[in-house]
Amino acid sequence: MVEKWKVKDTGLAKDGAKKIRWAEKSMPVLLRIRDRLSKEKPLKDLVISACLHVTKETAVLVKTLQAGGADVALCGSNPLSTQDDVAAWLATAGVHVYAWRGQSQKDYYKSIDDVLSLDPVIIHDDGADLITRVHKERPEWAEEVWGGMEETTTGVIRLRAMERDEALKFPIIAVNDAKTKRFFDNRYGTGQSTIDGIIRATGMLLAGKNLVVCGYGWCGRGIAMRASGMGANVTVCEVDPVKAMEAAMDGFRVLPLSEAAALGDIFVTATGCNRVIRKEHMIVMKDGTVLANAGHFNVEISIADLDGISTKKRQARPNVEEYTRWDGKKIYLLGEGRLVNLVCAEGHPPEVMDMSFANQALCAEYIVKNKGKLSPKVYNVPEVIDSSVAKLKLETMGIEIDQLTKEQKKYLKSWDLGT
Amino acid sequence: MVEKWKVKDTGLAKDGAKKIRWAEKSMPVLLRIRDRLSKEKPLKDLVISACLHVTKETAVLVKTLQAGGADVALCGSNPLSTQDDVAAWLATAGVHVYAWRGQSQKDYYKSIDDVLSLDPVIIHDDGADLITRVHKERPEWAEEVWGGMEETTTGVIRLRAMERDEALKFPIIAVNDAKTKRFFDNRYGTGQSTIDGIIRATGMLLAGKNLVVCGYGWCGRGIAMRASGMGANVTVCEVDPVKAMEAAMDGFRVLPLSEAAALGDIFVTATGCNRVIRKEHMIVMKDGTVLANAGHFNVEISIADLDGISTKKRQARPNVEEYTRWDGKKIYLLGEGRLVNLVCAEGHPPEVMDMSFANQALCAEYIVKNKGKLSPKVYNVPEVIDSSVAKLKLETMGIEIDQLTKEQKKYLKSWDLGT
Amino acid sequence: MVEKWKVKDTGLAKDGAKKIRWAEKSMPVLLRIRDRLSKEKPLKDLVISACLHVTKETAVLVKTLQAGGADVALCGSNPLSTQDDVAAWLATAGVHVYAWRGQSQKDYYKSIDDVLSLDPVIIHDDGADLITRVHKERPEWAEEVWGGMEETTTGVIRLRAMERDEALKFPIIAVNDAKTKRFFDNRYGTGQSTIDGIIRATGMLLAGKNLVVCGYGWCGRGIAMRASGMGANVTVCEVDPVKAMEAAMDGFRVLPLSEAAALGDIFVTATGCNRVIRKEHMIVMKDGTVLANAGHFNVEISIADLDGISTKKRQARPNVEEYTRWDGKKIYLLGEGRLVNLVCAEGHPPEVMDMSFANQALCAEYIVKNKGKLSPKVYNVPEVIDSSVAKLKLETMGIEIDQLTKEQKKYLKSWDLGT
Amino acid sequence: MVEKWKVKDTGLAKDGAKKIRWAEKSMPVLLRIRDRLSKEKPLKDLVISACLHVTKETAVLVKTLQAGGADVALCGSNPLSTQDDVAAWLATAGVHVYAWRGQSQKDYYKSIDDVLSLDPVIIHDDGADLITRVHKERPEWAEEVWGGMEETTTGVIRLRAMERDEALKFPIIAVNDAKTKRFFDNRYGTGQSTIDGIIRATGMLLAGKNLVVCGYGWCGRGIAMRASGMGANVTVCEVDPVKAMEAAMDGFRVLPLSEAAALGDIFVTATGCNRVIRKEHMIVMKDGTVLANAGHFNVEISIADLDGISTKKRQARPNVEEYTRWDGKKIYLLGEGRLVNLVCAEGHPPEVMDMSFANQALCAEYIVKNKGKLSPKVYNVPEVIDSSVAKLKLETMGIEIDQLTKEQKKYLKSWDLGT
Repeated sequence: MVEKWKVKDTGLAKDGAKKIRWAEKSMPVLLRIRDRLSKEKPLKDLVISACLHVTKETAVLVKTLQAGGADVALCGSNPLSTQDDVAAWLATAGVHVYAWRGQSQKDYYKSIDDVLSLDPVIIHDDGADLITRVHKERPEWAEEVWGGMEETTTGVIRLRAMERDEALKFPIIAVNDAKTKRFFDNRYGTGQSTIDGIIRATGMLLAGKNLVVCGYGWCGRGIAMRASGMGANVTVCEVDPVKAMEAAMDGFRVLPLSEAAALGDIFVTATGCNRVIRKEHMIVMKDGTVLANAGHFNVEISIADLDGISTKKRQARPNVEEYTRWDGKKIYLLGEGRLVNLVCAEGHPPEVMDMSFANQALCAEYIVKNKGKLSPKVYNVPEVIDSSVAKLKLETMGIEIDQLTKEQKKYLKSWDLGT
Repeated sequence: MVEKWKVKDTGLAKDGAKKIRWAEKSMPVLLRIRDRLSKEKPLKDLVISACLHVTKETAVLVKTLQAGGADVALCGSNPLSTQDDVAAWLATAGVHVYAWRGQSQKDYYKSIDDVLSLDPVIIHDDGADLITRVHKERPEWAEEVWGGMEETTTGVIRLRAMERDEALKFPIIAVNDAKTKRFFDNRYGTGQSTIDGIIRATGMLLAGKNLVVCGYGWCGRGIAMRASGMGANVTVCEVDPVKAMEAAMDGFRVLPLSEAAALGDIFVTATGCNRVIRKEHMIVMKDGTVLANAGHFNVEISIADLDGISTKKRQARPNVEEYTRWDGKKIYLLGEGRLVNLVCAEGHPPEVMDMSFANQALCAEYIVKNKGKLSPKVYNVPEVIDSSVAKLKLETMGIEIDQLTKEQKKYLKSWDLGT
Repeated sequence: MVEKWKVKDTGLAKDGAKKIRWAEKSMPVLLRIRDRLSKEKPLKDLVISACLHVTKETAVLVKTLQAGGADVALCGSNPLSTQDDVAAWLATAGVHVYAWRGQSQKDYYKSIDDVLSLDPVIIHDDGADLITRVHKERPEWAEEVWGGMEETTTGVIRLRAMERDEALKFPIIAVNDAKTKRFFDNRYGTGQSTIDGIIRATGMLLAGKNLVVCGYGWCGRGIAMRASGMGANVTVCEVDPVKAMEAAMDGFRVLPLSEAAALGDIFVTATGCNRVIRKEHMIVMKDGTVLANAGHFNVEISIADLDGISTKKRQARPNVEEYTRWDGKKIYLLGEGRLVNLVCAEGHPPEVMDMSFANQALCAEYIVKNKGKLSPKVYNVPEVIDSSVAKLKLETMGIEIDQLTKEQKKYLKSWDLGT
Repeated sequence: MVEKWKVKDTGLAKDGAKKIRWAEKSMPVLLRIRDRLSKEKPLKDLVISACLHVTKETAVLVKTLQAGGADVALCGSNPLSTQDDVAAWLATAGVHVYAWRGQSQKDYYKSIDDVLSLDPVIIHDDGADLITRVHKERPEWAEEVWGGMEETTTGVIRLRAMERDEALKFPIIAVNDAKTKRFFDNRYGTGQSTIDGIIRATGMLLAGKNLVVCGYGWCGRGIAMRASGMGANVTVCEVDPVKAMEAAMDGFRVLPLSEAAALGDIFVTATGCNRVIRKEHMIVMKDGTVLANAGHFNVEISIADLDGISTKKRQARPNVEEYTRWDGKKIYLLGEGRLVNLVCAEGHPPEVMDMSFANQALCAEYIVKNKGKLSPKVYNVPEVIDSSVAKLKLETMGIEIDQLTKEQKKYLKSWDLGT
């Protein structure tokens, strides 16, 4: 029998409440959706299990799902990213929350099992740990799930691999791929919050530093753009030739990591791949080099390799581990190689989570309304949802835009009007 | 009987040769492809008709097609964009070229008919005038065409409309949509050359000016990015809520054009739509306002409306028409509302045309190799072509990039490795 | 009789030590100077009193002065900016430190009196509170002071006013005006740390926000540059026409504050003047507006006016005060209107303080070496000191630069070589 | 006996008139000053000789001086920068103009002698050739000159050298050093027009190019800022450690030219010094390297050295000389190493010349009003002139700014109000 919730200290609930209230000020789209769902109750009596970073913004989503009638279970999608005061508040608000900052690997999977044990019919995932878990550990229940949503690039890569292997047992909506998600959350959200995490952890001046970004996807270009905006001299490493060329034309230096390794002051990984920064790179790095990861899993920087070349290790600052290399030079690892924006700062700002989670909420509703009509495949977010999120967001930002005239609509459909 | 060619003055051929030689220095990808095609001759004895801006870069493509064995006919895709010296050189080099700067509407279509009269089996188009012409005027021949390529957003919009209407009679490859085309040509090419066109035409200082960009597609964002890079204060007008929000998060002001109209010093349209800047906007513009169009057709700024509100019109500078509004205020129209980068400057820099035209050449070869296997639909550029262009380009720029390790490839395919 | 020191809790000394050690890694110029001073002991047995923000970087300066032989007394230059752990460590290291975070106005001045009571011959000041205090309260001792250094724009303005009034009793070196100080500390330091302070305090996404900077001096332009680099749409308010025009040509919108007040999401003051944001502005601000000050004193935003228009006040987040205006709309004041970068973040990064404090240390030595030769005026930092700091900094950053050839030096001195 | 004027072809006067009219639209400050001077006639019957780039903007200044009552003589300040149609118009308008594009060295100095032969009492200079000429060749007349103005950094360097050598015979006002001149003309003017010159000459895409800027003064930073804004990856070379560090903190790569030489695609000099790019750099440059100079004299790139290492030379494009190095690689020199913005484009945009020349006109008036009160020294532009230019400019741009309140003015003067 699983407990109703498991958090660090419910005494922190009041602090959590304050944080959530603060986040809500910047999440007007989700609040409007909440208003409607609370009237229509489309999620009435449904169990929804979510594996998400337990942050103030996630709490705003959970409250929205509850308002729609759902019974929500929540675990963290990263052992280090839970905000304990938010978890506390959620526990007091009737959520089955199993999360605390600093979980062990074992606790982490136990919590996933806990939220699964409530037999959810809808799943919100961030990194696909929950979805793969239900497929591997409770395959019989996987058949009962109506559908799930995945929040991250990393997760979508995994789920498409499952789809390819025909291992998928229920439909997935790739929330990550919504335009109102990946264009904003991945680029502007990761961009700002990664810079924020690095500065909070180290207090370093970015101006004049050589900052190397590994990966020039949406996250990577957000980081490059903001680092450059703070005065860093940015070098980009890529494996994709098109992206590499975009980086070059955006004015960045493009080098293979093997060359960049000896030049950088700060390295940030944002690839979705493993072992990006390895021994071969670490041994040529300068004294004082800082390593940070902005990708979903803590596999992008090889900590094993870092341990392997080091003779000593100590905490230099909160969230900064100092490794002393065999030759006496120091390398600093931020947040144990986990998501630097979540571990060392507060994660994505609520303004972007507002859009991402608006998609999550509307897709949950969509799955209910289309129960039985969807196959066990990875779907895109329906265009109408994506676009409605954008419209609501602009509205709440006080931004008005143009409308096509009738004549223009006709012109755009025609093909016989030329030069 | 059509003439073998029709250009302004073959005496200009030497100047054209110099220009083309200059362009070739910046088009190494196409030169490498030319090398291979000249050995393999995949286009041997095929007639290829092209409707493209007759510029030095186009000449490099035409020479490449010739090297592959083709008999090439060429007309301009805009009455004002032909470089007469380049056309002259092409005529002397055995190309059936029918183009000169300042064609009348009638000459323009006559030239299209001329290149069609040679019974091409492959078509390169830029704006879809040639393709729609063959469908409307010589429908019987359209059946004989193996396939065509389209270079522009505007043209692809038209061709997809034809596809939707089931009017299309042969396969089209949307070269415009190749990553190595639209990410670069539309963004960096249009970005720089539009700014270049405005400065050459007006000599204005951009720093401190209010510049309004209509449309935030690839072209529009290239223009916004570069205008901002030159110190202009940029406002963006859009009809698409997602793009509008991207513009806002990129730091630009977003306004409906009805509001922006009274604030801007310079307006640039890049929408692919018609009547974007209309009477209702023109009547509130400031004295001295400059209007430029970067979209394919000269329909984005309504010249009829401008005429309608004006009492006088004179040429203030080459390519700058001064309209005196009823209230005495002046509005300046650049390049008669045609593509400002081609009319007032030299069009896209050769570096980006290198990639766009590498796609054109390789797609022509692809159509030959896949003759009979393609349906009358709009196809994307095959990924392998797109990616090979990127690789060649990086190579010629001296940029090396990372390769995935075996272990990483495996990781990216797997889905059971989580937190 | 004054205590030897007064800090919050010496038990925090170990944390302070860690912080100082961290800062030293980024302050190599000061460490090199420390090396030399510790051998030469130019400050032997001299009492130096300093009124500076008690941060880890200041501790590195204090250690350097001690290494040079000085007996150092230190108080904070702002009631809210003291890092208690650093103060604790300094106390244990033999510094007469009188500082803790959250001092009352009375404590603040008492601490200044404490450091003065030790009869300093050299003074380091930050805002000129210490220097004006000794002039007003202990005028007889002011005559005994050999000289002082002032760190801030605000302080230099005050001291030049004293000089004009012939009130100054000892020479002052305007460290603030050194190129290696104001070009870097004020611009890059304030730029980054102000952004850092706003993000830490609010967690807001800057992309897409309207951020208004009041003042376009070195600090203001650093803030504008970085805010823009983070995706904010920046408006600048100025009183100086030249600076206003620079802002416009840098691409920013320039408005009088009376107009900007209704448009901004975030306001930052950096003027050195008082009552910049007043009732007349506050009453038209949007719901949710955030106010921050980056100027030295907490007088730039009128808190009295804010109180006057509010019906309620509560803490919304640490360092964020929520004021509810009479009409129910909220205005958020960061860090009680005090220096947002020091109160809400960690102040200037050590990399820039390295240069500022290198000037401070070298100027202290200069005063000793020039004892009796300087008049009671405000002096610039000697060019040779300024330039040596720059050279050392470049060296420690691993940046090499060109040297003029003999021939070039001759050319630059000549005037008879023309076209 | 000198002719009344000497230009290429007075038949071009009509084209010149059009150009000047166009410039006037963007020079509202000078027009307002012209209005006043034409009423007050402070320059009545005075001979003013000017050695300035003969462009449409200069014509606007000359007309203004004429309106003030002066009899104006004008020669070009660079053999390649004269706009012949503008010169033609000036000749027809009663100006003693001796200038045509493509003067020989001999013609150039002859023209200077011609304008001197009219016995000017006021001199406007650009590079100090006219002023040094009068000192060397007609020293007796130099005594009669009331004063002169110098427009460039290069010229001011020369004149200060003369002042140091006590060689100066009349007062000079360093117009170049006015804030409303050097902050704008040198930075935004040179920035944009240098980029413009490079693009017009070469048609190159700047995005993705390695562009090396030699010199990080106002001109150099304008060029770096704009090149970066066009997508180039910018490297800065400097001899001054403070400026080198500013460049680094602005996010640029800083290298000695000896290292940068092998990496750049484009080099731009803006130093005011000679032999900046020399043989030692040229021999390691990449094939296809482009060299451009934005400094006043054509001495920054050593053409002699370039000739020395080349086996062949031909014109590749207008204003582009192709040098074939001994190893077959090509180096391209733009505009014969003369001011690339004037030779390959149209020089500074009228918007900035409006401010520079407003200072010139007002300083001419100032010299008249202060006749006999000034010593033979280099003076700064009086603050009141500088500031009035800024105010007028803002006004004509429609930009309003804040005013200090009485209370604020008092605060700024006080020194006894502290924390």
